[in-house]
Amino acid sequence: MINVGIVGATGYVGCELLRILLNHKKVNVSALSSVSFKDQKIASVYKSFNGITDLICENSDDVIEKSDVIFTALPHGLSEDIAYKCYKAGKILIDMGADFRLSDEEEYKFWYGKSFKHPELHEFSCYGLPELNREKIKSSKIIANPGCYPTSIELALMPLLKNSLIETNDIICDSKSGATGSGRSLTLTSHFVELNENFAPYKVGAHRHTPEIEEILKVMSKEKVKVTFTPHLLPINRGILTTIYCTPKEEINLEKIHELYSSTYKNETFVNVLDLSETACTKNVRYSNYCNISLHQNFRKDKLIIVSAIDNMVKGAAGQAVQNMNLILGFEEDEGLNFISPSF
Amino acid sequence: MINVGIVGATGYVGCELLRILLNHKKVNVSALSSVSFKDQKIASVYKSFNGITDLICENSDDVIEKSDVIFTALPHGLSEDIAYKCYKAGKILIDMGADFRLSDEEEYKFWYGKSFKHPELHEFSCYGLPELNREKIKSSKIIANPGCYPTSIELALMPLLKNSLIETNDIICDSKSGATGSGRSLTLTSHFVELNENFAPYKVGAHRHTPEIEEILKVMSKEKVKVTFTPHLLPINRGILTTIYCTPKEEINLEKIHELYSSTYKNETFVNVLDLSETACTKNVRYSNYCNISLHQNFRKDKLIIVSAIDNMVKGAAGQAVQNMNLILGFEEDEGLNFISPSF
Amino acid sequence: MINVGIVGATGYVGCELLRILLNHKKVNVSALSSVSFKDQKIASVYKSFNGITDLICENSDDVIEKSDVIFTALPHGLSEDIAYKCYKAGKILIDMGADFRLSDEEEYKFWYGKSFKHPELHEFSCYGLPELNREKIKSSKIIANPGCYPTSIELALMPLLKNSLIETNDIICDSKSGATGSGRSLTLTSHFVELNENFAPYKVGAHRHTPEIEEILKVMSKEKVKVTFTPHLLPINRGILTTIYCTPKEEINLEKIHELYSSTYKNETFVNVLDLSETACTKNVRYSNYCNISLHQNFRKDKLIIVSAIDNMVKGAAGQAVQNMNLILGFEEDEGLNFISPSF
Amino acid sequence: MINVGIVGATGYVGCELLRILLNHKKVNVSALSSVSFKDQKIASVYKSFNGITDLICENSDDVIEKSDVIFTALPHGLSEDIAYKCYKAGKILIDMGADFRLSDEEEYKFWYGKSFKHPELHEFSCYGLPELNREKIKSSKIIANPGCYPTSIELALMPLLKNSLIETNDIICDSKSGATGSGRSLTLTSHFVELNENFAPYKVGAHRHTPEIEEILKVMSKEKVKVTFTPHLLPINRGILTTIYCTPKEEINLEKIHELYSSTYKNETFVNVLDLSETACTKNVRYSNYCNISLHQNFRKDKLIIVSAIDNMVKGAAGQAVQNMNLILGFEEDEGLNFISPSF
Repeated sequence: MINVGIVGATGYVGCELLRILLNHKKVNVSALSSVSFKDQKIASVYKSFNGITDLICENSDDVIEKSDVIFTALPHGLSEDIAYKCYKAGKILIDMGADFRLSDEEEYKFWYGKSFKHPELHEFSCYGLPELNREKIKSSKIIANPGCYPTSIELALMPLLKNSLIETNDIICDSKSGATGSGRSLTLTSHFVELNENFAPYKVGAHRHTPEIEEILKVMSKEKVKVTFTPHLLPINRGILTTIYCTPKEEINLEKIHELYSSTYKNETFVNVLDLSETACTKNVRYSNYCNISLHQNFRKDKLIIVSAIDNMVKGAAGQAVQNMNLILGFEEDEGLNFISPSF
Repeated sequence: MINVGIVGATGYVGCELLRILLNHKKVNVSALSSVSFKDQKIASVYKSFNGITDLICENSDDVIEKSDVIFTALPHGLSEDIAYKCYKAGKILIDMGADFRLSDEEEYKFWYGKSFKHPELHEFSCYGLPELNREKIKSSKIIANPGCYPTSIELALMPLLKNSLIETNDIICDSKSGATGSGRSLTLTSHFVELNENFAPYKVGAHRHTPEIEEILKVMSKEKVKVTFTPHLLPINRGILTTIYCTPKEEINLEKIHELYSSTYKNETFVNVLDLSETACTKNVRYSNYCNISLHQNFRKDKLIIVSAIDNMVKGAAGQAVQNMNLILGFEEDEGLNFISPSF
Repeated sequence: MINVGIVGATGYVGCELLRILLNHKKVNVSALSSVSFKDQKIASVYKSFNGITDLICENSDDVIEKSDVIFTALPHGLSEDIAYKCYKAGKILIDMGADFRLSDEEEYKFWYGKSFKHPELHEFSCYGLPELNREKIKSSKIIANPGCYPTSIELALMPLLKNSLIETNDIICDSKSGATGSGRSLTLTSHFVELNENFAPYKVGAHRHTPEIEEILKVMSKEKVKVTFTPHLLPINRGILTTIYCTPKEEINLEKIHELYSSTYKNETFVNVLDLSETACTKNVRYSNYCNISLHQNFRKDKLIIVSAIDNMVKGAAGQAVQNMNLILGFEEDEGLNFISPSF
Repeated sequence: MINVGIVGATGYVGCELLRILLNHKKVNVSALSSVSFKDQKIASVYKSFNGITDLICENSDDVIEKSDVIFTALPHGLSEDIAYKCYKAGKILIDMGADFRLSDEEEYKFWYGKSFKHPELHEFSCYGLPELNREKIKSSKIIANPGCYPTSIELALMPLLKNSLIETNDIICDSKSGATGSGRSLTLTSHFVELNENFAPYKVGAHRHTPEIEEILKVMSKEKVKVTFTPHLLPINRGILTTIYCTPKEEINLEKIHELYSSTYKNETFVNVLDLSETACTKNVRYSNYCNISLHQNFRKDKLIIVSAIDNMVKGAAGQAVQNMNLILGFEEDEGLNFISPSF
């Protein structure tokens, strides 16, 4: 049995990850850490763990010591030191934050205002999107688990970009996320009365996930990609839906595009290419590790519109992290992730 | 006192219009009609009118006979005959449906699958967006009240288009609407369990509001405008937020754009141009006739992103209809419409 | 024009009161105060006031000086000093907090853990439930505006208690409130993700509104009344619905009870006794000052079940405060309060 | 591998049951039936089954033929004939409707307006509340799966009634249910715009679950029990919370009551007695088969208030049905039911 631990277990991502790991047949959750809830039982922080686990929040060094695989769910800038310790100890780190997502330190400085702490580790780290980097992930010890928005966008565009079918200088990504994406911290934005019955974008055209999206899309297309990305906050708990507008290089044959997507993803457990008559929605992927993708064009047939839906907490965070762990440890890729989305 | 009546009073738009008209100091609601609830008190259909009005649903001819101004809130294709009767009787018609919104019969056939019934009336009708057509509205007897999505888009783009500041061949409009926009008819899509905690687009790239949007944007820009428009359904009752992506012809100076918007709308009661530090949201216009607009650019500064928010039932339907009525009757433009949006 | 001011204007109750007062034709809002947002424009705290008012938050002494009527929307224990200053200055105070609601200082000590600061003022103060104390209110200078839950319960029981029709030693009041009742302070309970899709009671059987309810019910019944009161938190913004279970002294004739309620409230603008076929719900009183009451019995006909619904922010707080002001100032009782509840 | 089938698979209960059964390691879902969606794939009715199962809706006879255990999720009155066929064929029937819940035919006639169709079967049937009837269930072939509201009430009161600690002539049960309880049929009540931001009771004091509750409570207490039961509809998808008010025969010692509950349920996997400092809420049992119970008293200590929470679709329907199946088939009682409730 592999021992796994979570550094930063009491945020929403940590909590969701714990839920998935406790259901995972081949790992044992050995330790958790939390700064805010140090020495408290996780079941007293999240009552739904009552009777399920007696784990207590320790400090991050305890987690590293007791675990073979360490997951970090921390604000950006805090994972690199953990990664360094894991690396020294020969352990596997899966970072669900932003520290290892950008390979270009200049970009990181521009968007996050600081330098890499351990630049040498960035040589070893691997961007953990299994559908793109499966083989590389298997042999990595530091995984940069993708951002939630980037996951929804990268999977939606991969077949088009790998086959150079669209213009890369003007891709519009209009994303909408449920409130768990904003985390458990108390802010007026996530106060029930303020968010309920409301809808708005934030960080319009300038969200920190943009460079991550552009870097990975460039990897796919092998040319520079310019993305305009705007996230919005939905008054629901879970789910990201992204509507992507792009311009095909040649006249669209949507059936052909659909065939391409279907063949690209035919062996992917966690990507569903919907029939052309269907439209992706957040509900059908809730609590699951699936990414649903639907393909559309405008009535003039000069624009492709790709709609993708994921659960931001699962395929957008904790589920994908476990998928990465499964790959590294040689488990079935869907081990612990093959739950059926409830219809309501 | 002017007598006003509503044909199709028991849908959500009719109900909202009645609420506004009952609060209006200078008109008297003389009659209502409904096919589904004929002979029933409106207060038995919508309990919130209990103790407020004893009006009973009659038929449309009764409404025409008893009213100086007739509002129609009907499925498309049913207003032209009412308009014809009003015209013959020398009365004013404000149609909140689609029958008079498109001036080009070929476009109407393409999108609605039928011809104009009374093509001659379309010569007299006026598109009722006061911020664009105020003077023409004042002397019109048939008003095509704009669609909800088009209102949110046209007001957001007017300053740019009138001044030829953006490319017109590729405007992306990503709209999100509350559930009242889908009406009171019972469908699985609007079943509570199905819509609650869900989010999805519909009629992607091919919604019937597209030709209306393109026609009016063309009026503004004096050149053909191509719009890719995708509506989404939000799990909230009220509000439309549209995120518009467009390409400026020259380098953006957002402060200049803000000045342009501010001066364009400085005399408009119902358009708020927000400070550059702010972002439009549906909450701040709920239950009001305001359109809030915020201006943004992407981090590369090669895209303008305009965000607009309206209450789809008010500025997007019933409120704008009353604004049009006020103009025609020579009342203060905000008579009966100067209510303050509740903050929650 | 009467000058009115709000001490504690930036909480939800203060905000709602401001909205109502700005729409009130016979008063001028002269000043606001806030500790947290001192020197800031109220329109920057609540954006929906943008373009409506330029009022700036001052301190409480400014409000007292500039106003003829002062409303306090403060945590308990902070209004008595304001009341004292108003009293000295010959001004009218309407307190929307708990400081003057209990006449018995021992009860106040038991539930709030402190003594009256200015016991002499409690001689002058009047409990501001117009349907019970209308004449006394008219000549009062210190009004204890009722609590939200008590309002929903007292109006629902008044006809039964005044006529000694039910047992008074065992009344069960099961109340459910929207989230505005918990205020704007940031707590985990009111975090969107935590409250959305959740439902729970709080302070079961031991909420501080209990002694207020019991005192007023005793005034009505002229005998000691024992109430078991449990509030619950609803994932909606506005509204209180209370389900009251009581035992009739004699066999129930529900039609007779309905007649009694109808005659008791026949001259009351803001109390609707629903037909026996109907059931009160929060939706039909949202944004209005109405209290809707429906009457029921269990199938065995040995229990009366009274259901009442109010908007906790209006009849449960700010609206009732304005109703009290109208009475004191000799205005029409519904001045500024005759808005129609939107149906959605 | 045991073959199981669902008659009435396309309602919410059927859908939830299918989800649980597909995750169950020891049974094979052999057939489904639906009148409305005959010959359609269940995955086309509920898209979340896409890629999970290819099962097609057949007719009820197909289900009976292909299955060892048959679950019925039908409107009342339709299960008896299915039960008769199952009985003849020597198969196990678990009815999630009302047909076998009441043992007294007169009561059934009073509440449902019809007689038993196969009275002889009622001799064999067993009320499937495992915590009450575990041993009897194991040897039964016809199970009346309890109603959702009754489950939340019976588990909450069993320790008190079995020990004769409360008065049985006046128990108040105030229940609140999520919208899945109203089913998938399209009604105005469950139309999103109508239910969202609304709250109301229905069938006040006269719901058909009342006789079921009273019969089972009588079994527990061995004396007649009179319950006043009022259900309310919550604007959430899942969950029932019931607040129960009862009068102890002797002075309350809440710690003692807590000990009693803890010992009564100490071996029960699916009943959690919360610490005295905690309060049950729907969120912590969502998507789980748990019933959480918290114990309270009013400040006067003359009333006991018991709060229980279940997921109406799981412990209130499909989960309990599977729990019953597990008992009958000799599986671990929590087989297929040991999922962890997500915290959000």
